[in-house]
Amino acid sequence: MSDQTNSAWGGRFAEATHQFVAEFTASVGFDRRMYRQDIQGSIAHATMLAAVGVLSETEKQQIVSGLQEILVEIEEGRFNWRVELEDVHMNIESALTEKIGLVGKKLHTGRSRNDQVATDIRLYLRDQTDVIAAELKRLQSGLIELAASNTDTIMPGFTHLQTAQPVTFGHHLLAWNEMLQRDSERLQDCRKRVNIMPLGAAALAGTTYPIDRAITAELLGFDGPSENSLDSVSDRDFAIEFASVASLIMMHLSRMSEELVLWTSAQFDFVSLPDRFCTGSSIMPQKKNPDVPELVRGKSGRIFGHLVGLLTLMKSQPLAYNKDNQEDKEPLFDTIDHLWGSLHAFAEMVPHISPKKEKMREAALRGFSTATDLADYLVKKGMPFRDAHEVVGKSVAYGIETGKDLGQMSLTELQRFSDLIIEDVFDVLTLEGSVGARDHLGGTAPTQVAAAAERARKRLE
Amino acid sequence: MSDQTNSAWGGRFAEATHQFVAEFTASVGFDRRMYRQDIQGSIAHATMLAAVGVLSETEKQQIVSGLQEILVEIEEGRFNWRVELEDVHMNIESALTEKIGLVGKKLHTGRSRNDQVATDIRLYLRDQTDVIAAELKRLQSGLIELAASNTDTIMPGFTHLQTAQPVTFGHHLLAWNEMLQRDSERLQDCRKRVNIMPLGAAALAGTTYPIDRAITAELLGFDGPSENSLDSVSDRDFAIEFASVASLIMMHLSRMSEELVLWTSAQFDFVSLPDRFCTGSSIMPQKKNPDVPELVRGKSGRIFGHLVGLLTLMKSQPLAYNKDNQEDKEPLFDTIDHLWGSLHAFAEMVPHISPKKEKMREAALRGFSTATDLADYLVKKGMPFRDAHEVVGKSVAYGIETGKDLGQMSLTELQRFSDLIIEDVFDVLTLEGSVGARDHLGGTAPTQVAAAAERARKRLE
Amino acid sequence: MSDQTNSAWGGRFAEATHQFVAEFTASVGFDRRMYRQDIQGSIAHATMLAAVGVLSETEKQQIVSGLQEILVEIEEGRFNWRVELEDVHMNIESALTEKIGLVGKKLHTGRSRNDQVATDIRLYLRDQTDVIAAELKRLQSGLIELAASNTDTIMPGFTHLQTAQPVTFGHHLLAWNEMLQRDSERLQDCRKRVNIMPLGAAALAGTTYPIDRAITAELLGFDGPSENSLDSVSDRDFAIEFASVASLIMMHLSRMSEELVLWTSAQFDFVSLPDRFCTGSSIMPQKKNPDVPELVRGKSGRIFGHLVGLLTLMKSQPLAYNKDNQEDKEPLFDTIDHLWGSLHAFAEMVPHISPKKEKMREAALRGFSTATDLADYLVKKGMPFRDAHEVVGKSVAYGIETGKDLGQMSLTELQRFSDLIIEDVFDVLTLEGSVGARDHLGGTAPTQVAAAAERARKRLE
Amino acid sequence: MSDQTNSAWGGRFAEATHQFVAEFTASVGFDRRMYRQDIQGSIAHATMLAAVGVLSETEKQQIVSGLQEILVEIEEGRFNWRVELEDVHMNIESALTEKIGLVGKKLHTGRSRNDQVATDIRLYLRDQTDVIAAELKRLQSGLIELAASNTDTIMPGFTHLQTAQPVTFGHHLLAWNEMLQRDSERLQDCRKRVNIMPLGAAALAGTTYPIDRAITAELLGFDGPSENSLDSVSDRDFAIEFASVASLIMMHLSRMSEELVLWTSAQFDFVSLPDRFCTGSSIMPQKKNPDVPELVRGKSGRIFGHLVGLLTLMKSQPLAYNKDNQEDKEPLFDTIDHLWGSLHAFAEMVPHISPKKEKMREAALRGFSTATDLADYLVKKGMPFRDAHEVVGKSVAYGIETGKDLGQMSLTELQRFSDLIIEDVFDVLTLEGSVGARDHLGGTAPTQVAAAAERARKRLE
Repeated sequence: MSDQTNSAWGGRFAEATHQFVAEFTASVGFDRRMYRQDIQGSIAHATMLAAVGVLSETEKQQIVSGLQEILVEIEEGRFNWRVELEDVHMNIESALTEKIGLVGKKLHTGRSRNDQVATDIRLYLRDQTDVIAAELKRLQSGLIELAASNTDTIMPGFTHLQTAQPVTFGHHLLAWNEMLQRDSERLQDCRKRVNIMPLGAAALAGTTYPIDRAITAELLGFDGPSENSLDSVSDRDFAIEFASVASLIMMHLSRMSEELVLWTSAQFDFVSLPDRFCTGSSIMPQKKNPDVPELVRGKSGRIFGHLVGLLTLMKSQPLAYNKDNQEDKEPLFDTIDHLWGSLHAFAEMVPHISPKKEKMREAALRGFSTATDLADYLVKKGMPFRDAHEVVGKSVAYGIETGKDLGQMSLTELQRFSDLIIEDVFDVLTLEGSVGARDHLGGTAPTQVAAAAERARKRLE
Repeated sequence: MSDQTNSAWGGRFAEATHQFVAEFTASVGFDRRMYRQDIQGSIAHATMLAAVGVLSETEKQQIVSGLQEILVEIEEGRFNWRVELEDVHMNIESALTEKIGLVGKKLHTGRSRNDQVATDIRLYLRDQTDVIAAELKRLQSGLIELAASNTDTIMPGFTHLQTAQPVTFGHHLLAWNEMLQRDSERLQDCRKRVNIMPLGAAALAGTTYPIDRAITAELLGFDGPSENSLDSVSDRDFAIEFASVASLIMMHLSRMSEELVLWTSAQFDFVSLPDRFCTGSSIMPQKKNPDVPELVRGKSGRIFGHLVGLLTLMKSQPLAYNKDNQEDKEPLFDTIDHLWGSLHAFAEMVPHISPKKEKMREAALRGFSTATDLADYLVKKGMPFRDAHEVVGKSVAYGIETGKDLGQMSLTELQRFSDLIIEDVFDVLTLEGSVGARDHLGGTAPTQVAAAAERARKRLE
Repeated sequence: MSDQTNSAWGGRFAEATHQFVAEFTASVGFDRRMYRQDIQGSIAHATMLAAVGVLSETEKQQIVSGLQEILVEIEEGRFNWRVELEDVHMNIESALTEKIGLVGKKLHTGRSRNDQVATDIRLYLRDQTDVIAAELKRLQSGLIELAASNTDTIMPGFTHLQTAQPVTFGHHLLAWNEMLQRDSERLQDCRKRVNIMPLGAAALAGTTYPIDRAITAELLGFDGPSENSLDSVSDRDFAIEFASVASLIMMHLSRMSEELVLWTSAQFDFVSLPDRFCTGSSIMPQKKNPDVPELVRGKSGRIFGHLVGLLTLMKSQPLAYNKDNQEDKEPLFDTIDHLWGSLHAFAEMVPHISPKKEKMREAALRGFSTATDLADYLVKKGMPFRDAHEVVGKSVAYGIETGKDLGQMSLTELQRFSDLIIEDVFDVLTLEGSVGARDHLGGTAPTQVAAAAERARKRLE
Repeated sequence: MSDQTNSAWGGRFAEATHQFVAEFTASVGFDRRMYRQDIQGSIAHATMLAAVGVLSETEKQQIVSGLQEILVEIEEGRFNWRVELEDVHMNIESALTEKIGLVGKKLHTGRSRNDQVATDIRLYLRDQTDVIAAELKRLQSGLIELAASNTDTIMPGFTHLQTAQPVTFGHHLLAWNEMLQRDSERLQDCRKRVNIMPLGAAALAGTTYPIDRAITAELLGFDGPSENSLDSVSDRDFAIEFASVASLIMMHLSRMSEELVLWTSAQFDFVSLPDRFCTGSSIMPQKKNPDVPELVRGKSGRIFGHLVGLLTLMKSQPLAYNKDNQEDKEPLFDTIDHLWGSLHAFAEMVPHISPKKEKMREAALRGFSTATDLADYLVKKGMPFRDAHEVVGKSVAYGIETGKDLGQMSLTELQRFSDLIIEDVFDVLTLEGSVGARDHLGGTAPTQVAAAAERARKRLE
């Protein structure tokens, strides 16, 4: 690039591109990961051009064979990527022309880099969406199975990180699964809008060749061609929508991570993670650090950042294609990589989370977790809820003072707060009584949790 | 609040809330806009409680009548909002109890503020989504009609803000419409996930009362009850997803705004906006500033910011409800308000955008906008595309040097660059020839644009 | 506004502003909080105009008296704000003209709304910066005093939320103070760039009147006039820089909040907060929720969002003033309000954080917190660090297996891992021995912490 | 990593790290760029350890020589980076031990990876800050010189992208320089806080070795050691502050870019950029696209995103070091790279921006740019400003109707709007008259611009 102008567009130019500018504006360093999609798109384009008579059958064959050879060369690491050819598209086209001569130049008939790059990136994102969806499903499946085997494992439920009411561990895990289920739906909704074909938009206005976009769309598995050429080359909604779906997933993983970090602390000690998902310390030999959850929690920032980057990128851009848009790829690719990595690490780890049931139970027994049950008990005996709330509040204050949880008080002590309390109160003050009583759709009763796990399993299939 | 503890939860507390803390943590200043949904939710809840026998029919009637009276009082501005009662929920419940006595306290049976607030906000957002969708549709309709009456108005199409190829103004407007069409679909996808009922999750684990959530869901028009109580009280995905849909809409409006600002500049001078959408200058009497597009462009930042705020809010939050979540409302409400305002302003303004057809045409005649047509012409005469590109590049360089556009050169001049050029070249070098030749789905040919407008119209219905 | 054009700029306009547009583009609803600065700026401007002879002394007197009357009216709530006059500036100027007649119109000589608004907002931000700096200092002071009285209160230090090494509570609090100290420096650095006067830039290019900007700058307490008029009316760096300083402060408060939430959980139970900084639950009578830390943690998102909003706002804006810039005020004002509120709530609360020393100590005794000390002990006996690390790792593994912490093992047990271990090992395995040994600048030894608190105290003054 | 535990921390671990986890958590792929700083820090640490007697002089020599050899190996590309050793630190330490035996293990005495990584990253950022500051200065210098040679080149000044008043091109360029000047100051303010030494904080609490942090700080050129060990290992403010400084710079470059894109459009045509900073189109031979400004404008989003990522990363993190923090490096490094690249590209390009003076002048003559001058003229003849504004507004409306700019109207025509207008009005309606009259500090008068350029030049030195 330093001593000659680019052959693809240099006719009008009097001087060569500045060396640094050539490197600064080149994208082949990161866009070459789309080589498979670029070749796939070119083969479909050539096939369509032959179908409408713009290329002869022989020309098409030469082009297709040449591209297939190039594909093999790339996959075998024999392809010579050249930064002076700017991007993956020019690298492949240039190699094709070297290989098959002038016919190679005809491949670009009726298209432009603007619609070519938009097509490649959509194909690539569609493929990666499917890979990510599969990993998300695997993680969900792991969660559901772990939940199904812990429908009656009792732990404290928290609000404000204060002990609130007992819940089951299975119920908690299914809460995580609900988050991911929404993510999965969003991913599919996003995929619908990704899978639209911009090819045929050419530079911005369409082409003067008699192209048939329905053919190309079908060959490439797109749901259909796009409606408007100007929009097609300038639209990057799909990248932003994907990044926002990814941000929600990462936000959810950050919440699960936070809980895993809490639960593996000495203070909570609710679960253990296998050593192989943890690392140690170079200075503190006793440490077993929950690196995977921590790192994933940290990666949420990275993905939120890419979402912001992409939104900023598109803000105020006039139609149609502007060079700014080259900046769409790195954040999108990095989002894909780290989202997949985070999901993969979790999918591997989750089935091996081992609950420490005794510790969970002990914690649930502390902290007046059945206070609401006592209030409900009083209400069922006829006291208005708000009054019952106050009665229980006072008995809790007494418990804090005397160091006794509600279940540890004598009947006489409890009766100091209301004479509606009789012997049967102790049925509702047990952990099993408490969780079992929340027996409706969405509640934490073990039978409800088992049924919810079963529904989740079916929904996943 | 300075001299007594809050009656809803004070039983356990030894001292009153700090005065500033009471104000700092109160939400009634902003959440009272959900009063209608709060009352609607409470009426449905009471109705369900009566249906399952927790309330008597008389109790239900008293509650419903009381709430309806309160609704009237609020709408007539006669309701006394009290900051010491923290939020809209406690204000209304407290007024109810004052009005109907102890029975009012029974309304809170089997629910908690955690599921109540989650229900109210979803109802509110669902209602506002429909209002916004209607405004979006109105804007789209304005765009389509303006496009339909400008299918053959020729203007320069730009890439890199350099004149690229001629397009029609209608085609350009339909590109805007495509952006909004995707937004409209995203809004409906988001609505599906908003319209799920958390009520019945109670504080976090469900309730011990024999509630029937299907009844409440149906009464409130929800698609169904949520699957998991822990998730239900902690989930704020709907706010984030809405903010991301809103961000995309605002990003699109920022692009349209940018173009309107360009087009109303003296340099472009492509359209005029009615005076009533512009403002003037306090110091420069000649100014007519495109305030609406500028302000809307600026508001994109505000909405992107709210998206970031909401994602950050939820990052790393352990289950279930935490006080942090109170911070979901203001960004959500502000997003709703300014999104609606921006759409409304555009919906009012767009039908009155007046294209200056002569100026557009003149601009399209400059800048070698038919250079691609010349290249295609040469290819059709048998020259490989990349060679044709170079030939045209040289003729453009000549044009810049001599101050002539391609259509202004003589045949002899043109033939200096290729002897394939003959008399018929002038057919493709006209603006009409150029746009008319892009005659395929998505292309800028007037017939295609007319058909696209018709499809867009149908799709909108 | 619906039936007449704005008198400040309407001469060139053929029709009145659209009713909704008038409301949509008006800023008086939020910018009137700068009334004091607007009047202060106008008085200085009038004084300067008189000094250079553009106004007569009498005219100046009339203007100043009129403005002072208006100030009193506003502060006493008697001023009639009118949305049709758009903003605080036109409201005040219009009231002035009503009050003193034609002379009032002369006030605007040699300035424009563009430089006027830029001046007002800088004055306002400068004032608020000082208020915030004072609150930050008060919080720091509270932290330092609490630290100074806890220089030898031992708690577990964490990395990865795993027990790492014992530290003192005072040391931990001083870590918080260091964060705030950097914030305080950043706030002052930002203030330098806020305190530059744009007045005199007029609309964008300066004015034809013989103004003397040094006079106005001095009257208003600015460090000096700005260098370039175009930059002066378009620059909003100060808002962005302030928002980024605020974001760092809120990030720090979110970290402190996270720790306070952890520490007040039943699992950690390291500190207690007074009831007056907490709230309860409407359904769970036992709850005492750390609302203030939670809410402040949540507010970090809000402020990060405003930073993003402001950066987005300015991205790609051509010079000079554009209407977009009106969107600078609400995020800035909201940042100021919630930053101040968060600092104020913390400044009130922090001195009343009460450490539960026994609980902290017990926690520090668990989790092999002195493992590093054992490793250092071995190294001092001649073993290479990495080998000592391995030896200790094995003794920790043995401790986990047998349920014994290092200090609880017998000498014989310890010697199984290395024969370098002799009786004196128990000196380094105590908590006091461990913290006391980290006796260098920045270390956790009580004498170091006391000295650090003293330095912090001095630095604050 | 798949078949053995990490030798640095594996003693306590029963199973090897999961293969994918090892890759997922490794940082050597990106942190090895800090090899020079890592070695520099280790040499200083060893020197200090020898000074305080923890290492013998011979041991120190061996370590220093070994490290210097490794430095050469890395710089010559002969070093074998191993992902299973996690990061740059362990790779170098491991190579050192291979090279010099057991003594190599002593290097880690009295430090931890936590303070080591914090030290390396601050050293690296300090060095890069200086490199960036130099490039920023070079760009400023280019701007100032271009401004100095265009102090009287007249162009239209815009507000709302509407022609407002004539300004000089030099004045406009100096507005850009003012933005960068503030950036330069912010960069230096940030550097102060970067240049503080965390080394000696060890894992989190300091070390039991008798280290002397003042020695190390001096050897490494730090302004001093940090105050608090817990803060030292957990603080990432410097990265966030740097990213916010970088965001402001990129925001400014996006504004300059936007203007360059506008100015090189056919519609504005105010400047030309050399071919070597532009690229062409693969389909449109006539295109000369301003790629550098467009790409830089796009890169603003990337940097804003990194700022958000880093803020999110730190939100709610409890003390002290957490694995999340490993996510600080990639956004920081990418910020450094693209900020430098953008500044470098601009520094190369700016001196070659060539103003098209005739085009600028023509544009300034249109659009009623001297309307304010006419208003000021009337005011000086005794008319109140607001009235003069209205008079001029009406004459502009007449001008639009008749297609005449103010300077093109006859005296009779002008007098239709006010009889204060006499022959001398034409002096103020010329472009030279208009710019020359704004003759005060910060104004656009050529003499003021020349003086401002001179001050800017001096300030830069």
